[in-house]
Amino acid sequence: MEPSAKKSRALIRYDGEKTCEVVDEVATEWPVTIVLNGQEFATLVCSPDYVEDLSVGYLASEGVLSDYARLTELSYDDRTGTVYVDIGGVDAWMKESGSKRYLTSCCGKSRQSFVFYSDARTTRALDSRKVRLTYAACIEMMEAMQAQSGLFRDTGGVNNAALFEQNGTLLLSRMDIGRHNALDKLYGHCLSNGVPMDGKVLAFSGRVSSEVLLKAAKMRCEILLSKSAATDLAIELAEELGITIVGFIRNGSLNVYSYPERLYKAGE
Amino acid sequence: MEPSAKKSRALIRYDGEKTCEVVDEVATEWPVTIVLNGQEFATLVCSPDYVEDLSVGYLASEGVLSDYARLTELSYDDRTGTVYVDIGGVDAWMKESGSKRYLTSCCGKSRQSFVFYSDARTTRALDSRKVRLTYAACIEMMEAMQAQSGLFRDTGGVNNAALFEQNGTLLLSRMDIGRHNALDKLYGHCLSNGVPMDGKVLAFSGRVSSEVLLKAAKMRCEILLSKSAATDLAIELAEELGITIVGFIRNGSLNVYSYPERLYKAGE
Repeated sequence: MEPSAKKSRALIRYDGEKTCEVVDEVATEWPVTIVLNGQEFATLVCSPDYVEDLSVGYLASEGVLSDYARLTELSYDDRTGTVYVDIGGVDAWMKESGSKRYLTSCCGKSRQSFVFYSDARTTRALDSRKVRLTYAACIEMMEAMQAQSGLFRDTGGVNNAALFEQNGTLLLSRMDIGRHNALDKLYGHCLSNGVPMDGKVLAFSGRVSSEVLLKAAKMRCEILLSKSAATDLAIELAEELGITIVGFIRNGSLNVYSYPERLYKAGE
Repeated sequence: MEPSAKKSRALIRYDGEKTCEVVDEVATEWPVTIVLNGQEFATLVCSPDYVEDLSVGYLASEGVLSDYARLTELSYDDRTGTVYVDIGGVDAWMKESGSKRYLTSCCGKSRQSFVFYSDARTTRALDSRKVRLTYAACIEMMEAMQAQSGLFRDTGGVNNAALFEQNGTLLLSRMDIGRHNALDKLYGHCLSNGVPMDGKVLAFSGRVSSEVLLKAAKMRCEILLSKSAATDLAIELAEELGITIVGFIRNGSLNVYSYPERLYKAGE
């Protein structure tokens, strides 16, 4: 019995003049433990939907699942919040990588391995220039992503991610209380269902940090749209990896941080 | 040479009608590796200021530094981004705790240990009711925190945290690109400088998740103010630990999620 993504809570609302007791909805936090080849591997705190996709996307993002065909088992016990995953060939890789570095990589990479180690294994520069968008299309996609985010409207506590076709068709959208989880749910869905990701546009509600940029690169997205700002390291990586970052998409305007040649004005 | 917290970048701005090239400021992402008793322990991606405070606050939050007097060495090489920390008695504790669980705890706790393990070691329920605030004071504190956040205004890419006296005096404020880092910088400063934290009010710009709530509990703050929403797990923990969560403080209104008895209307 999967828990609900939101719960009702009684709370006191103060509107600047008076207080009243209201019932409001809050986002659920759900800890999920991934057991990889029989060993406890990581615990993600997430919104409780699409947990299998999240696990697949997380393992692929971390470079553990570099070839989806090696996934031999995936099951989810939604009573205990445990995902059982078996991946062939990973034990040798973990041994070779050194388990310490590997385990600590979940909250950031050590300097020398930050970009080059686990991520370089799975991230190649994009030299494709298949995708081009008008500025107006970027704004419309961001609006479309937000328009269908019911959980965000209800709870105010989640991040959104969505995958679009170049022509503006919304393919898939996911939400999560965890900053990266919504992206991993998209990535996991595409891997599990054989959805090709190149030629797509990725939209995200949160800040574009280096980790978000690397996820976009692994998903082979040429254009990453964000409602928020980008960091210096994300922009540097985007320049190296050939990705267009469009940020601060709000109130009808936007910033292009890298590879502006993929964008143009309607009619040009 | 500590890197700057923000950098200037040339980018293309589209305002809905025309594009122009502008120079804007983006937040710096700086990976810092903590070497604990000679062993690489964790890497935090952070804004590059107050790195020693961040390290102390992080180790205290994680339960590694349960007694500040045991810290025998703290030095920061800002060229390589490495913090060297020596803590007495911690090796035996790490051995006893099991290093695997310990290391994975950085991105969430396993279910059985989620609340009870590392956190129960360092978190006691607050039975104090020393702090009381008017609703209007909550709103004023949130405005005061945001008013002095120059880095946020410049880059749009950081989280803010601030510590207030009950009378509204702003004691300390910190910013960071990392969700929890601004809180750890406050915590580390208070520990390093012997600033008592009980009787204070903690304000945070981000969502109140279980991890944020547990940090507030460790800092012995009776009232936690947030611009954003709270999650179900954070509210449950607040009820157990005796903490008042005031969320969604924006546009002159707010929500009280737990222990509303610490709040009152001016004149009552």
